[in-house]
Amino acid sequence: MNYDRILIRYGEVALKSDPVKNRFINRLVGNIQSGLDRAEVKYRIERDRGRLFVITKDIEKSIEILRKVFGIVSISPVKTTKGELEHIIKVVENLAKEYIREGETFAIRARRKGTEKVTSKMIEREAGAAVLKTVDARVDLTNPEKTIYVEVRQNKAFIFTEVIKCEGGMPLGTQGRVIGIFDGSVEAVCACWLMMKRGCEVIPVYPDARPYSSKKDYEVAERNASVLREWTIGSKFYLKKLDIGKAVFLFSEECGKDLVGTLIRRMVYRCASRVAKIYKAKAIVTGETLKKGGDVESFHLGEMASDLVVLRPLIGMDRDEILKLSERIGDLEECKGVMQILEERFKPGGVLKEIEECEGRVDAERLVEESISGIGKD
Amino acid sequence: MNYDRILIRYGEVALKSDPVKNRFINRLVGNIQSGLDRAEVKYRIERDRGRLFVITKDIEKSIEILRKVFGIVSISPVKTTKGELEHIIKVVENLAKEYIREGETFAIRARRKGTEKVTSKMIEREAGAAVLKTVDARVDLTNPEKTIYVEVRQNKAFIFTEVIKCEGGMPLGTQGRVIGIFDGSVEAVCACWLMMKRGCEVIPVYPDARPYSSKKDYEVAERNASVLREWTIGSKFYLKKLDIGKAVFLFSEECGKDLVGTLIRRMVYRCASRVAKIYKAKAIVTGETLKKGGDVESFHLGEMASDLVVLRPLIGMDRDEILKLSERIGDLEECKGVMQILEERFKPGGVLKEIEECEGRVDAERLVEESISGIGKD
Repeated sequence: MNYDRILIRYGEVALKSDPVKNRFINRLVGNIQSGLDRAEVKYRIERDRGRLFVITKDIEKSIEILRKVFGIVSISPVKTTKGELEHIIKVVENLAKEYIREGETFAIRARRKGTEKVTSKMIEREAGAAVLKTVDARVDLTNPEKTIYVEVRQNKAFIFTEVIKCEGGMPLGTQGRVIGIFDGSVEAVCACWLMMKRGCEVIPVYPDARPYSSKKDYEVAERNASVLREWTIGSKFYLKKLDIGKAVFLFSEECGKDLVGTLIRRMVYRCASRVAKIYKAKAIVTGETLKKGGDVESFHLGEMASDLVVLRPLIGMDRDEILKLSERIGDLEECKGVMQILEERFKPGGVLKEIEECEGRVDAERLVEESISGIGKD
Repeated sequence: MNYDRILIRYGEVALKSDPVKNRFINRLVGNIQSGLDRAEVKYRIERDRGRLFVITKDIEKSIEILRKVFGIVSISPVKTTKGELEHIIKVVENLAKEYIREGETFAIRARRKGTEKVTSKMIEREAGAAVLKTVDARVDLTNPEKTIYVEVRQNKAFIFTEVIKCEGGMPLGTQGRVIGIFDGSVEAVCACWLMMKRGCEVIPVYPDARPYSSKKDYEVAERNASVLREWTIGSKFYLKKLDIGKAVFLFSEECGKDLVGTLIRRMVYRCASRVAKIYKAKAIVTGETLKKGGDVESFHLGEMASDLVVLRPLIGMDRDEILKLSERIGDLEECKGVMQILEERFKPGGVLKEIEECEGRVDAERLVEESISGIGKD
């Protein structure tokens, strides 16, 4: 079938009050546009109540992009025709010839909005009868092998066979900006992705701890970031490096062994807060999970050094659930994130007083300045 | 079939180092015991490598309890026999007579651990042949309608047909204690449940805002808490009331209209921190989600009044995902939580300086004392 457009269904957006809804739909349309533009697809967008249409010749390519636009619940490539019964029947007949094979069972499902010319039942009955004459198949309304959908809106009818489920959520950018601590791990990717799905634009910072982490760690992080980048339609997603190697060195030389892990976490949170100021972000996102005793205490000691709230979308998830989630995102490389590498080497611990005393001694504020000195010049 | 025991598989636990693993398994066994004791089941528990067995006559009742013990990945009611081939064949034959119907396809799947007397292949072949003689059925190894499983361990064989998936996670109580802000909403239930699944014991506090909330709100919260209580095998789960009605009244009388929402959130976080001290809990859990602009800022203003880290396991989730999750937990009543009721009436806003000034004026510290005065006497 020569499909001529893609029907787009969006979700949560529809629940909101009118001004909010309009802002959301505008953002959704804007994101769709920048995705299709980026891929150099030629298209036109039409709006209808609760639906969007992308009219294009490049159906396949557009589908691949729309799948990764947050806020879209599902899409269907459709064939458009006029809203009168005779036109609908003709398209359904043609589609059935290609789509329904000999001996299969089928059903026609119709819905109608904003027109009185035909009823859903009428379409289902008449188009069904026409298919029976054309193809050697049987009707099964309960559990058909093939289904042809007809959606009539005003004076047009849209005919399709496929409903491709997308991720839903809120259009990227509708919930403000957050800083993602992106250390290359699958957890970091998942955490950023979940917040993007909730509508947040994520600015990723990469804690570069060389020589404690390696060039290879950075390269893996870059590759995983590029998988996530496909979902950032409507915003940018480039790693901003925090150079924390020197700080890690000073902590490990100058401070008690038990404190280094905590000092590092505080350092990274602190840097993220500073970057947040530059980009007007309002929260920090991390892929932190509960793995062992003491994790929560260490989160708290870290957070006291942050000016912003720290969101941990994976905190209630199992390793298995995280891996399952990561498969939805794309083909990620499993690796140890920089934060995990550092944590295995430098156990977090200590009490606030000691820690603050150390931070004074090594001048943690100056170290933060140095670590973020390369950021925000773009 | 007369099953004589339940085979229990556990997951994440198995990944840890030996001392951690032992602590986890001990806790898991302890939780299973208290669940079965609470239900007055008579049983005995046996341990084997990577498996536990509950030996009981009360199979049905035990299954209902074990389903809700975190840390268990799956369970199977099994028939036990000796590890020799002839015994296995006999039990499989008997089971097949009841289980496989005429004309169905079947497969035997065997695995073996710690014995050399038989091989898996041998069992599958011989038991399969015996079934073919007894029942009018066909073998289908790829996609059988019925499967009979045989697991041989040392000198015993366990035969079963069913693998009941459970929730997995970590045994309740292995990850310390947290305070759950339990306002009765489905979100609060889900947030507490997720942290319990990660091994945290949750102490629920209910913000009772009468006259701003109602007796009915409290009753619904109690009913939803009782659904969650079925999952708290190995710990208690009783709502502890924070009486915040007076504080809400004073805030709304004495403070700027824009600040009241934030003042309430800070009040509740502050009370939760105080309750945490009483019960030695190390974090606060809330069902907060991103719903509208300004939420994150309000989280932050709240958190500055808390002595503990605030975990928000739902922060990356859609409304739909939350509802789907809630169905796994049980038959919950949908309702507005107290926090949502208050939030709709008193919008959160303001800046820290103003807010702290107000808190000084109404003596927020004393209000906290009064609100929690009934807690910790048990």
